[in-house]
Amino acid sequence: MISTIPNSSTENLANVRLQIRSLQPQLIEWRRHIHQKPELGFQEKLTAEFISQKLQAWGIEHQTGIAETGIVAIIKGEKSQHGKVLGIRADMDALPVQEENEVTYCSQHNGVMHACGHDGHTAIAIGTAYYLQQHRQDFSGTVKIIFQPAEEGPGGAKPMIEAGVLKNPDVDAMIGLHLWNDLPVGTVGVRPGALLAAVDFFNCTILGKGGHGALPHQTVDSVVVAAQIVNALQTIVARNINPLDSAVVTIGELHAGTRMNVIADTARMSGSVRYFNTDLAGFFKQRIQQIIAGVCQSHGANYDLEYINLYPPVINDAGMAELVRSVAELVVETPVNIVPECQIMGSEDMSFFLQEVPGCYFFLGSANAEKKLNYPHHHPRFDFDETALVMGVEIFVRCVEKFLI
Amino acid sequence: MISTIPNSSTENLANVRLQIRSLQPQLIEWRRHIHQKPELGFQEKLTAEFISQKLQAWGIEHQTGIAETGIVAIIKGEKSQHGKVLGIRADMDALPVQEENEVTYCSQHNGVMHACGHDGHTAIAIGTAYYLQQHRQDFSGTVKIIFQPAEEGPGGAKPMIEAGVLKNPDVDAMIGLHLWNDLPVGTVGVRPGALLAAVDFFNCTILGKGGHGALPHQTVDSVVVAAQIVNALQTIVARNINPLDSAVVTIGELHAGTRMNVIADTARMSGSVRYFNTDLAGFFKQRIQQIIAGVCQSHGANYDLEYINLYPPVINDAGMAELVRSVAELVVETPVNIVPECQIMGSEDMSFFLQEVPGCYFFLGSANAEKKLNYPHHHPRFDFDETALVMGVEIFVRCVEKFLI
Amino acid sequence: MISTIPNSSTENLANVRLQIRSLQPQLIEWRRHIHQKPELGFQEKLTAEFISQKLQAWGIEHQTGIAETGIVAIIKGEKSQHGKVLGIRADMDALPVQEENEVTYCSQHNGVMHACGHDGHTAIAIGTAYYLQQHRQDFSGTVKIIFQPAEEGPGGAKPMIEAGVLKNPDVDAMIGLHLWNDLPVGTVGVRPGALLAAVDFFNCTILGKGGHGALPHQTVDSVVVAAQIVNALQTIVARNINPLDSAVVTIGELHAGTRMNVIADTARMSGSVRYFNTDLAGFFKQRIQQIIAGVCQSHGANYDLEYINLYPPVINDAGMAELVRSVAELVVETPVNIVPECQIMGSEDMSFFLQEVPGCYFFLGSANAEKKLNYPHHHPRFDFDETALVMGVEIFVRCVEKFLI
Amino acid sequence: MISTIPNSSTENLANVRLQIRSLQPQLIEWRRHIHQKPELGFQEKLTAEFISQKLQAWGIEHQTGIAETGIVAIIKGEKSQHGKVLGIRADMDALPVQEENEVTYCSQHNGVMHACGHDGHTAIAIGTAYYLQQHRQDFSGTVKIIFQPAEEGPGGAKPMIEAGVLKNPDVDAMIGLHLWNDLPVGTVGVRPGALLAAVDFFNCTILGKGGHGALPHQTVDSVVVAAQIVNALQTIVARNINPLDSAVVTIGELHAGTRMNVIADTARMSGSVRYFNTDLAGFFKQRIQQIIAGVCQSHGANYDLEYINLYPPVINDAGMAELVRSVAELVVETPVNIVPECQIMGSEDMSFFLQEVPGCYFFLGSANAEKKLNYPHHHPRFDFDETALVMGVEIFVRCVEKFLI
Repeated sequence: MISTIPNSSTENLANVRLQIRSLQPQLIEWRRHIHQKPELGFQEKLTAEFISQKLQAWGIEHQTGIAETGIVAIIKGEKSQHGKVLGIRADMDALPVQEENEVTYCSQHNGVMHACGHDGHTAIAIGTAYYLQQHRQDFSGTVKIIFQPAEEGPGGAKPMIEAGVLKNPDVDAMIGLHLWNDLPVGTVGVRPGALLAAVDFFNCTILGKGGHGALPHQTVDSVVVAAQIVNALQTIVARNINPLDSAVVTIGELHAGTRMNVIADTARMSGSVRYFNTDLAGFFKQRIQQIIAGVCQSHGANYDLEYINLYPPVINDAGMAELVRSVAELVVETPVNIVPECQIMGSEDMSFFLQEVPGCYFFLGSANAEKKLNYPHHHPRFDFDETALVMGVEIFVRCVEKFLI
Repeated sequence: MISTIPNSSTENLANVRLQIRSLQPQLIEWRRHIHQKPELGFQEKLTAEFISQKLQAWGIEHQTGIAETGIVAIIKGEKSQHGKVLGIRADMDALPVQEENEVTYCSQHNGVMHACGHDGHTAIAIGTAYYLQQHRQDFSGTVKIIFQPAEEGPGGAKPMIEAGVLKNPDVDAMIGLHLWNDLPVGTVGVRPGALLAAVDFFNCTILGKGGHGALPHQTVDSVVVAAQIVNALQTIVARNINPLDSAVVTIGELHAGTRMNVIADTARMSGSVRYFNTDLAGFFKQRIQQIIAGVCQSHGANYDLEYINLYPPVINDAGMAELVRSVAELVVETPVNIVPECQIMGSEDMSFFLQEVPGCYFFLGSANAEKKLNYPHHHPRFDFDETALVMGVEIFVRCVEKFLI
Repeated sequence: MISTIPNSSTENLANVRLQIRSLQPQLIEWRRHIHQKPELGFQEKLTAEFISQKLQAWGIEHQTGIAETGIVAIIKGEKSQHGKVLGIRADMDALPVQEENEVTYCSQHNGVMHACGHDGHTAIAIGTAYYLQQHRQDFSGTVKIIFQPAEEGPGGAKPMIEAGVLKNPDVDAMIGLHLWNDLPVGTVGVRPGALLAAVDFFNCTILGKGGHGALPHQTVDSVVVAAQIVNALQTIVARNINPLDSAVVTIGELHAGTRMNVIADTARMSGSVRYFNTDLAGFFKQRIQQIIAGVCQSHGANYDLEYINLYPPVINDAGMAELVRSVAELVVETPVNIVPECQIMGSEDMSFFLQEVPGCYFFLGSANAEKKLNYPHHHPRFDFDETALVMGVEIFVRCVEKFLI
Repeated sequence: MISTIPNSSTENLANVRLQIRSLQPQLIEWRRHIHQKPELGFQEKLTAEFISQKLQAWGIEHQTGIAETGIVAIIKGEKSQHGKVLGIRADMDALPVQEENEVTYCSQHNGVMHACGHDGHTAIAIGTAYYLQQHRQDFSGTVKIIFQPAEEGPGGAKPMIEAGVLKNPDVDAMIGLHLWNDLPVGTVGVRPGALLAAVDFFNCTILGKGGHGALPHQTVDSVVVAAQIVNALQTIVARNINPLDSAVVTIGELHAGTRMNVIADTARMSGSVRYFNTDLAGFFKQRIQQIIAGVCQSHGANYDLEYINLYPPVINDAGMAELVRSVAELVVETPVNIVPECQIMGSEDMSFFLQEVPGCYFFLGSANAEKKLNYPHHHPRFDFDETALVMGVEIFVRCVEKFLI
């Protein structure tokens, strides 16, 4: 049982750390428990029950079943009357991956695995809730801890926002983290501005006219039309984007035809687009449609295009990023362990929260090459250095104490 | 039973016709019987049995089981001692098509149908055998009637030749016909030189390097490489072929990738090439390989290419074409019913016979628009005007009598 | 002087030949005279004067100055009262080529040369006029000999037709020939149907938006748009034409940009299209415009397109082709010297005459490899075997006598 | 005359500014004098003479004629014995542009104009030299002021370095500025890391095989090959570069062919490449060659490729950038006037100096929209707000005093 942490608003930095570090055995236990019971997006029932039991045991007010399986816990500081509201977000869902690690805490759910570290995120958030509940006198205002489903898709952030988790009381700012195996444990990646990219998805069917492979003049060859579209799409990144912006247009799938001597009537393409600059959200859709329409017109083909702006970019507020950076510097002990070059083209639905309120999302280094805990995220052998867990709690706690002063 | 045709070497043209026309009920009966029992290539067991029973009943020497299901019947003329050898070829196989006709003689084999008229070819050859056997005194030398399996692929002509059907006695020339719904019944399409195209098949796998859709620089995008290959392949027909030659290069299939946000590691393409000029047989293979190799090299991809020269073109000997033309003119009664513009880009393995010996393959008009007997070949509603059957027999018989004089 | 040819309507074939062959010295003299004074299209003043002087000296009725420099001579047969009208066409113009032959009759006009053999065509027509004038009793009706300017472009046939050369009396049929160094002297190339291709010309300017080479997103890169148009145009021949038709689409010029680090605002392309099938005349224009419009739309560019159907195909009437073939067979003495495989993708404005009246254009073999008289047409060392000249006259004369019987 | 500035090492910030601001009339006079006598790269004779006369008049040690027209002035501080060496760089050359401004100080050299502001750079450097010479007691060590020719190309920085301008005494760090009409006067753009891009140039000739426009099969069509190369080159930026890197590949020129009905034997392309990441210098050359080689091989063409790494990127040292930033903040009076988002894809041969020693290049805002002094650089109406001149001197002077403390 966890019961012996003294409540004190006067303890110094060293004391905070000492107390948080003492949570390590529990953090590991919680994380491993969750790891053994991984659940896909919007199906995080066991995980949510586990969280809710803990919160209830500790007397923390919380609401469950938000956007299916989401939970919001509320902890009110007692340092002063007034106060702002800080949200802390953790995602709970696992991936459809068959775990290949041989560990005692290996996934017990066939074909499902916490291969991205969300088990760790959840454990850190539980630990943070526990500590803050014990140290309410150390902060003013309110902390909302948001346990979110389905980050891997189709996305739980948006429905939780729509369910009102940023209201009553209104959240002033948000923080969140991702355990990150591209950084060694003991480092933190944080930067103002764009951290993770927006992602759009599209499906396109080229509607040509099929026919006998020997009679091309009676057809509209959808393979040829699709090939010219793939070519023309290359010019979006190569010619239409400010070179100082980052963007990717990928055609992930192209499928046409069933026999070598029959001209295919339709070609089906699907792709994804990534970018940081929110001004470009409409641009890519317009350009992709323009290219497909023009090339189809060139060849007398028609098309169906479905285009979805899936996640916006994760854009950190400058002030909140500075808050996290300054706090993280204390935790990792030296500025050189803060990595500002941590922008990546991946995507995260934390972005929806950061569209609503200022905030900061950051990477918490979790790799340990010596222990071979450095497989990439989503890999069947993914695992991370669990000493990162206490660092996550410490950064969250210090952010709370600094933001809700 | 068919037994009343008088044997006579002195009958005039009108008599020949009269006697052949009297075969019509039998020809229709045989054709419909075969139509009801369609069999795919190299599986023509019932068909071969039916043929063999007929030949045996009429005392015609024949060999079965050649290249699986093929049959060769031999009828020796008695007009004079000496003599050449003329081969007549008929194909027996059906197609994997579910018949949609509502006729009494509809296919009884689920998913298999004589949708190309080979039932008619077989019936005509049976009828020709019957007539010639009855009129041996009207020709010198020998007629070999070759019932071939698997014309629709993978090809029965080549294995029959390898099995020696053109030897002992050695065939001097070959004729063959295709019922043809692009021409009205009562017309014949025949021309010297190339009548049907050669066809090559190829399969190509582009070996790129897959990866995350957001990280193209870590990959070799097989979709992009494939698209550029499809583009470059257009230049073969557009720029590399003598415009006076005819050729088609079709990519019938292009398949790459499984998810919109994953860059596909491989792309698989398959295609076919058609042409008349036999000098180009090696050319297309070389050009296609050169293009694929060059584009792959451009992008750091590898490839596997399998290229097969499937069927050569059907090239009619000028003399044999003139023989058929002159005979057909009598049968269809007027020169305007002889169509010299009948070259098409389709393919036929009759070409293998015509590579070995001079010969002539021709189209026997079989469409009757009024009776809606004009669906295209391979269509589930394909059927033909059965009055063409006697014309086929008459042309074959007259060719025999003129060639084996 | 040429004065000793006996007039006789009863001479036999051998006599005709003998008499025409005796013209050879004059034919060579005339041809060489014209060769030394080559003139470009619509500037054939010396050539026209030379022709006119001859016609006048021989008392042949003629009109000059038609379509600038054209001449029409009329010779009326006296064999019978009635009669048809046969036109014989010869082109007179030279090319902007600097002759490199070292012959006594070398071009005396700097930079201009009869490098295509029109000097020979003119000499043959003069010789034909001379002979026919002497042998008016051997044919009925009327021969119109049409000396045409500017065949090499922009075309003198059309303006001569517009000037009425096919009227009063109305021409019933036309013949014409081209000395041809792709065939050896002593052979004739003639076939019914399409002999020479139609040719269209087009100019296209892609209107993009220029800019700094480092700022592509502020531009519409006309080089990229033009490249995609060139690619897409390949599909016309590769995919949109019946493979049994012959066609060529060539982009002969592509010019864009002035500096390596400036994005070009415009790209200028020009090209030509060739084909035999007159049904396709409108098709190519429509497809080229469709492709340019579609690709430009894909990239937000505009365009100017000028498309001209320059010359239609030269299509021989079946009957007239048979007339020429049968006559030529006598002249070249054996059928094997008649070449039916003489279709080429080049173009000729003889086609305009053949659009108006049935006729036949043919190739008169003129190469002599042993004497190195086999350089290709338009080459600075082009020359031909002058023994072809009398063959040309003989074919024309015999056609007259056979057509105007 | 300028003679009354008091020498004092104890003056406060306000005094420094006051004294520098008093130089404004001279700065404007010098700048306008230079503006009226613009000279192209390596021809800056009048400009160099003008500078030298000033330096000589003020007793400043300097060397002329370095890399043709370059000058290095040396001013030794007297504050202390020891000391580092700081280089200040100004470029002197003008552009081949016909000035369209109607000002009293308009260019007097036809077709040549200071359309990029180097006249201002030179005036600022002269003013800095003057001030520092007067205030030697305010700094330790040595200031080297480098007046460089030919920045606009082909580049004077490299030959000056090769001539030893960074040696004897060895320069420890370099600063330099560019007047910048994309920023309003009163602002400064400065950032650590890459500020300006590297630029490579390439020329490529595609060697196909020409021929008649109707006979593509006898040719290798260089227009088609070039088009496919342009297409394939788009994939470098679109697929081969880390999306987080910035790069541009521009084909500025494409020229092929002379006539619409002749297939072009060669196509000539030239282009430029821009990027910040120096690791990619070899990459672009390799990829461009690989693409050209592969596509040429696809079509049986050859090529000549000339590729030049012209200028490396301008990369600011973090420490020196902070020095400039901190000083500029004083000059422009408020942090909001410091613009860190000033990275651009243009290039500058200041980069060669910064390859040798740490340093900082920065943009000095010079636009004044109200006065219409905001035409883009290189425009015939380019001019700038001359109040920027004193700011430039003040930043340079303060950097000297802070770096050479």
